[in-house]
Amino acid sequence: MITFYTYPGPNHRKARIMLEESGEAYETRTVDITKGEQFDPAYLRISPNNKVPAIVDHTASGDVPVFETAAILIYLAEKSGRLLPASGAGRIDAIAWLVWGTGGIGGTLPQLHHYADLAQQVPGTVERFTTEAVRLFNVLERRLKEREYICGDYSIADIPSFCSTAGWLGRVRDLSGGKLGETPAIDRWLKAVAARPAVKRAG
Amino acid sequence: MITFYTYPGPNHRKARIMLEESGEAYETRTVDITKGEQFDPAYLRISPNNKVPAIVDHTASGDVPVFETAAILIYLAEKSGRLLPASGAGRIDAIAWLVWGTGGIGGTLPQLHHYADLAQQVPGTVERFTTEAVRLFNVLERRLKEREYICGDYSIADIPSFCSTAGWLGRVRDLSGGKLGETPAIDRWLKAVAARPAVKRAG
Repeated sequence: MITFYTYPGPNHRKARIMLEESGEAYETRTVDITKGEQFDPAYLRISPNNKVPAIVDHTASGDVPVFETAAILIYLAEKSGRLLPASGAGRIDAIAWLVWGTGGIGGTLPQLHHYADLAQQVPGTVERFTTEAVRLFNVLERRLKEREYICGDYSIADIPSFCSTAGWLGRVRDLSGGKLGETPAIDRWLKAVAARPAVKRAG
Repeated sequence: MITFYTYPGPNHRKARIMLEESGEAYETRTVDITKGEQFDPAYLRISPNNKVPAIVDHTASGDVPVFETAAILIYLAEKSGRLLPASGAGRIDAIAWLVWGTGGIGGTLPQLHHYADLAQQVPGTVERFTTEAVRLFNVLERRLKEREYICGDYSIADIPSFCSTAGWLGRVRDLSGGKLGETPAIDRWLKAVAARPAVKRAG
């Protein structure tokens, strides 16, 4: 049994999709970050960076806490034997694209959200983070033109980028003022991932 | 033999330290990003996100390209059997802190550098990224008060955070205007990591 500590936010869905994909049994506990529960000493022992999501796997040899979305996905993949090759070039390729998804797209969009949605505009900031988001979506489009999923077969690499792209592609296209063109390969991939039963169950 | 594609920048030293720690033979090739060499089609097949560093491991069963600093460190650790437990709670803890180092500290400081070192100040941006850097260094200080290295024994988790902290701790303290206090545990750890032969060889 796994306990899933979470709160609505950009990384919640990534972890939840992987929990569903893994087939592991889990229960969900809300960490109300509007009440500061992420700073409770008991929670900091699970997630020392005071962020959600995190998981605790209650194993026969003891509790295993895991924080950081990319690490949660790697952990669940290695535990379940799903969505990450055990060895070879495909394994490290999936890990590299996973990190690209959580750190690259996943690092840029919250900055764009912050500055684009501030009541008062800060000169140059929306342009700066939009430019980087456009670059990243172009990298993704190039990649998906040549492969059905980011690393060929569906893998942990697809999950963070799917969540970020599904939520932000249209917004970034609007903000880019024409600099992000059509993305037929991304559009096809978004539909394919969204149709997966585990992704539907994750909501 | 590994080929190490790089150019001076924040992630160069992280990969180079791990190459030295791994004991693997490698040769270095410069990708001159001031000349746009990171966009060469041949390089994009190695590093599709058009960034340095990247590596190619020339193995008996073919070339294995790896991009993203965190993935390079995981790859070299798994190949060499060094600095990452093969299983158990310690394994995923090292991966989580590795990702925290490359994505958290490693994601925040380049933004701070951008805004703090711009000729023209952009209102609120230096404060915003300084506040996050202070939070991250406080997380690290709490962690290192209880452990010799980030995950107990020295591991891949220490390398990215060491490089970022060595370069930025004093600057962030200055920028914070007193909000980042003394960090005796970080100071001790910086000295211990800097004294490692592989870290000295990496320069």
